[in-house]
Amino acid sequence: MTVFRPRATLASLALWAPLALAACGGGTAGGGGAGATPSGDILSLMQARGLSEADVSAALMTYTPTGKHDEYLTFASGGHGGQLLVIGVPSMRIIKYVGVFTPEPWQGYATGDVATERVLDGGNRFGKRVEWGDMHHPALSETGGDYDGQFIFVGDKANARVAVVGLSDFMTRQIVTSELIQSDHGAAFVTPNTDYVIETSQYPAPLGGGYAPIEEFNEKYRGAAIFWKFDRQRGRIDPTASWAIELPPYMQDLADAGKLVSDGWAFMNSVNSERSYGGNLEGRPSLESGASQGDMDYLHCINWRKAEELVKAGRTTTIVGMKVISLEVAAAEGVLFFVPEPKSPHGVDITPDGKDIVVGGKLDTHATVFSFEKIAALASAKKFVGKDPYGVPILDFKESIRGQCEIGLGPLHTQFDGNGFAYTSVFIESVVAKWSLKDLKVVHKLPMHYNIGHLCAAEGDTVSPDGKYLIGMNKWAMDRFSPVGPLLPQNFQLIDISGAGDMNLLYDMPIPLGEPHYAQMIKADKIKAIEYYTPVGTNPITHEKDPNATLAKQERIERRADGVHVWMTAVRSHFTPDTIRVKEGETVHLHITSVEQAFDATHGFALGSYDINLSIEPGRHCDVTFVADRAGVFPYYCTEFCSALHLEMAGYLLVEPKS
Amino acid sequence: MTVFRPRATLASLALWAPLALAACGGGTAGGGGAGATPSGDILSLMQARGLSEADVSAALMTYTPTGKHDEYLTFASGGHGGQLLVIGVPSMRIIKYVGVFTPEPWQGYATGDVATERVLDGGNRFGKRVEWGDMHHPALSETGGDYDGQFIFVGDKANARVAVVGLSDFMTRQIVTSELIQSDHGAAFVTPNTDYVIETSQYPAPLGGGYAPIEEFNEKYRGAAIFWKFDRQRGRIDPTASWAIELPPYMQDLADAGKLVSDGWAFMNSVNSERSYGGNLEGRPSLESGASQGDMDYLHCINWRKAEELVKAGRTTTIVGMKVISLEVAAAEGVLFFVPEPKSPHGVDITPDGKDIVVGGKLDTHATVFSFEKIAALASAKKFVGKDPYGVPILDFKESIRGQCEIGLGPLHTQFDGNGFAYTSVFIESVVAKWSLKDLKVVHKLPMHYNIGHLCAAEGDTVSPDGKYLIGMNKWAMDRFSPVGPLLPQNFQLIDISGAGDMNLLYDMPIPLGEPHYAQMIKADKIKAIEYYTPVGTNPITHEKDPNATLAKQERIERRADGVHVWMTAVRSHFTPDTIRVKEGETVHLHITSVEQAFDATHGFALGSYDINLSIEPGRHCDVTFVADRAGVFPYYCTEFCSALHLEMAGYLLVEPKS
Repeated sequence: MTVFRPRATLASLALWAPLALAACGGGTAGGGGAGATPSGDILSLMQARGLSEADVSAALMTYTPTGKHDEYLTFASGGHGGQLLVIGVPSMRIIKYVGVFTPEPWQGYATGDVATERVLDGGNRFGKRVEWGDMHHPALSETGGDYDGQFIFVGDKANARVAVVGLSDFMTRQIVTSELIQSDHGAAFVTPNTDYVIETSQYPAPLGGGYAPIEEFNEKYRGAAIFWKFDRQRGRIDPTASWAIELPPYMQDLADAGKLVSDGWAFMNSVNSERSYGGNLEGRPSLESGASQGDMDYLHCINWRKAEELVKAGRTTTIVGMKVISLEVAAAEGVLFFVPEPKSPHGVDITPDGKDIVVGGKLDTHATVFSFEKIAALASAKKFVGKDPYGVPILDFKESIRGQCEIGLGPLHTQFDGNGFAYTSVFIESVVAKWSLKDLKVVHKLPMHYNIGHLCAAEGDTVSPDGKYLIGMNKWAMDRFSPVGPLLPQNFQLIDISGAGDMNLLYDMPIPLGEPHYAQMIKADKIKAIEYYTPVGTNPITHEKDPNATLAKQERIERRADGVHVWMTAVRSHFTPDTIRVKEGETVHLHITSVEQAFDATHGFALGSYDINLSIEPGRHCDVTFVADRAGVFPYYCTEFCSALHLEMAGYLLVEPKS
Repeated sequence: MTVFRPRATLASLALWAPLALAACGGGTAGGGGAGATPSGDILSLMQARGLSEADVSAALMTYTPTGKHDEYLTFASGGHGGQLLVIGVPSMRIIKYVGVFTPEPWQGYATGDVATERVLDGGNRFGKRVEWGDMHHPALSETGGDYDGQFIFVGDKANARVAVVGLSDFMTRQIVTSELIQSDHGAAFVTPNTDYVIETSQYPAPLGGGYAPIEEFNEKYRGAAIFWKFDRQRGRIDPTASWAIELPPYMQDLADAGKLVSDGWAFMNSVNSERSYGGNLEGRPSLESGASQGDMDYLHCINWRKAEELVKAGRTTTIVGMKVISLEVAAAEGVLFFVPEPKSPHGVDITPDGKDIVVGGKLDTHATVFSFEKIAALASAKKFVGKDPYGVPILDFKESIRGQCEIGLGPLHTQFDGNGFAYTSVFIESVVAKWSLKDLKVVHKLPMHYNIGHLCAAEGDTVSPDGKYLIGMNKWAMDRFSPVGPLLPQNFQLIDISGAGDMNLLYDMPIPLGEPHYAQMIKADKIKAIEYYTPVGTNPITHEKDPNATLAKQERIERRADGVHVWMTAVRSHFTPDTIRVKEGETVHLHITSVEQAFDATHGFALGSYDINLSIEPGRHCDVTFVADRAGVFPYYCTEFCSALHLEMAGYLLVEPKS
């Protein structure tokens, strides 16, 4: 705790007292302001709360009064929570968790609702449902290299899945997966016009999900980079138009797409060119030591526009339904090049002008700045220093770089402002380093608490970053917040980078659920979210009026060959019908439409003991199908507080026993 | 947005400029403070951010610098998200979501981990898993009527379940359910020494889960109040020592336990003494109108200590394993009394001195203050004005009350400070009313945005409330935050109630996941959370060393009759073993112990495509059992960032195909 120390300047603080007291005379703080402590003046308030003078500035830079909106929204991955976080900046308030890879009952996401169950089923692996994900990297859709606020894509490292979330309603619309690969890490990253969403594998395995002994690792295990084709008009990835490139069994890590001058290329790190595969109970080294032997790994440079031509020309092999450009073809046709990069790198980040590729070697002390122009020239001239064991041409390290910045131990990930500065997280040193892109010199280091992972700057991955705010995504919180048991939150630290000089720490924010690995920050006014679904009866996945949409007076119950169909409406504060009579063993199909068209007038629908909960936002249509396999009396009711008579918004499912 | 208007007092603000600029000269904001905007002074900062002078006070009352802890922790229910929120006050940062009724992969809660899967299975209904819950009312454990910081109990309205969460490690230890009832609402509430956890049903149904036609509602449908016996020593509810009281088919609502003078009694509202049961497609009124016909419902007064004697004396009937005191016995033996209460009430709240029972009639304009002394005297003298249709004696309304406070339209729920004031949320008027318990007069109303539900005051349900902070739990957020689609957060508004006069609004906080219905706020230093599990190999549910705990050098793989057993350790940054070879179809038992004993050094364990993720906090032991039914190569890895070589903390499950 900072102890306030009286000094000469306190005289000026004392002048605030009458001002603050006058301001809180009004009492009711309606639309805008808020009240002061009735018991004292500003100075005593600072003393009572242990605030330093510098804290006052930080408080004013982050405090967001009632009704005032945040300037930016940050989309952070939820790690192994499987959900996506939406965070307001500078208030650092979490505004929403969006269910993506994990069923989420508050949103009625895959907890009975047929449409969203189908979305989650899109990510089934080997025919089976996976009910969690390890979300790593969110990528906002781009137009011309700038975030356009329409979609966001996220990857699931554990199960090699990619999801599409629509930002008109913040709903997960699609999950795709290919059993070509068994895990990913470099996902999702988009090309500058969102033609493709990139997913690269992390842990090598036989392509397509087959078995091979681990001793045949070098020969039969492979990595791959999948280029998922995005159809912006439909708001969907088109798996049939997607394709992949086979890669050596190194652990491919993060990716980034070229932009402007480097548009048409993509870049990926790798961290285990040693091809270690563990075996610590069988006499081999653990992966952590096996993969850290060499001083260099391989930066993967992919000419994806040339690859796209090869795909069109049919130069692919199809594996588990995915068109794959083989290593041999990729190497021979000038699609894939390697450049040595120091040591076990993590982040690979293209500068806003598209000219440089910044790589942080996590067991190194440098941010290495590769030059796209040099790489392209060497590739074009076929000036190689050799080939890797799989025939991939290797470019000379020194001839490929513009230089290196001496950063500190453990550089991980780099973001940019609009003023020529780069910001690199330094894990082992636990700082953010601000450095000049022009002369590759560090100008300031700011301590982070603790163990910083990625960074997120305002519009930081675009061709025109805003600067202003930077978030340090710290992996450990330790003593930063009140103790809540052995499992602790992460700590997002908000940093002011608006000035030309030093960075300033503004705020600590605990992440209460999930472990974000990466985030992107967009100007809030670029997001055009709808207030309700229209027309009444809209299916939130198709965004069309559902065939079973039900309007007032159309409610009915019909017995058909496939079971009992109930066309139901929800409106404050009743469901119609509120009595459903079925026989034990019958299949029941509920078609429920909210006929509300008012902002925030959401209803829920819970059916006790049947494991069903829906969120029915205004105008939304939901379907549920279940077998009434338990005789008895089952209340259903609205789970989202809607009105003074919300508790009375209920009905009964009556399941008569078989005679 | 508040527009800053220059006025005479700005001269005093200007004096801050050099002070603030001096404060931020240091640059690196390490342990305590934070920097100011480099571009200007405090005044220009206020102008730039549109802050009023009053906002400055609010900012300073809520701003919590890096590393400083919150004074209070608020535990809020997560509604139909099924999770429990832990919120710091006054910073209004969510520090943790605790998985309770819904599987949660970040915590490894019921996503493969055998111990927590069993906890969730404790809440199975009719033999089937329910994977979500509608959490309504958290109740902190009490000793002598004060929160003791040891446990918290929560109810699941949809599936009539109650959970026990331990506050040493913030883990859900137990879920209990009785098929006696089909839903609850008045859950959980504790008696002053946590002898019992109270759960009352909401929607009447035949007791025990049987079927009866809805036309036999009056005769065969019933409510019930379950008194779950808590064994503090074991930290578990003991179902065999628990019992229930049969209640009429009114919709019992919230409950509260008497304290001090009223200790030994419990009080519950009801909202449908009309016994309406819907049927709007069958010619009957919807519940919302049917249940709102009468002007009075029944406050249920239960002498639970007398009921406990009846249970010991064997005066119960056993239904689906639950000992039940019948309505007839309860009415005849002086256990159950009714007092009329106006109209469709919601909150029933005992004053800190235990003398009064405050009821908010949600379709009324009063907070009605019942006197325990008067009720007990009338009950003792058997002075009844009649009986309800089920034979329950009714006391006279006017003779039972101390008075009524004219509050406004739609009073819902009441909290207390330590200075003789009550605070009632008023839903339809959308305000908080502060009123004097002594003379029953409103002294101030503060507008809420929007549709306020419950209130939560610092230590507000104890015998010694702290005052200071009050949270308005607003149901709708509307325009308060950046738009995030049709489904919006709730809005918790933090209110300063430290003064003798008006309340002051301090802060708006979005709830990003789930819909809290109630919360309790405890002094943070009462919580004694552990930093890691000790000894190494502790099972977090039993809190004992697990029989399969594995230390370094004890790692091994054995084939047994029931499958392949793998005793594994996790430590930065490898699993041992990191190669597991099995045959397709074999059952695999993983026994994984984290041998870490360092704060925050948590590991995860993900097995791709097998739908398994664990959280292995330092010292924790986890078990997983699965059938290796898919041949192939499946990476497993650490999902919780642990070190610079976290990505390399991985291994392979090799599933050889059947020959």
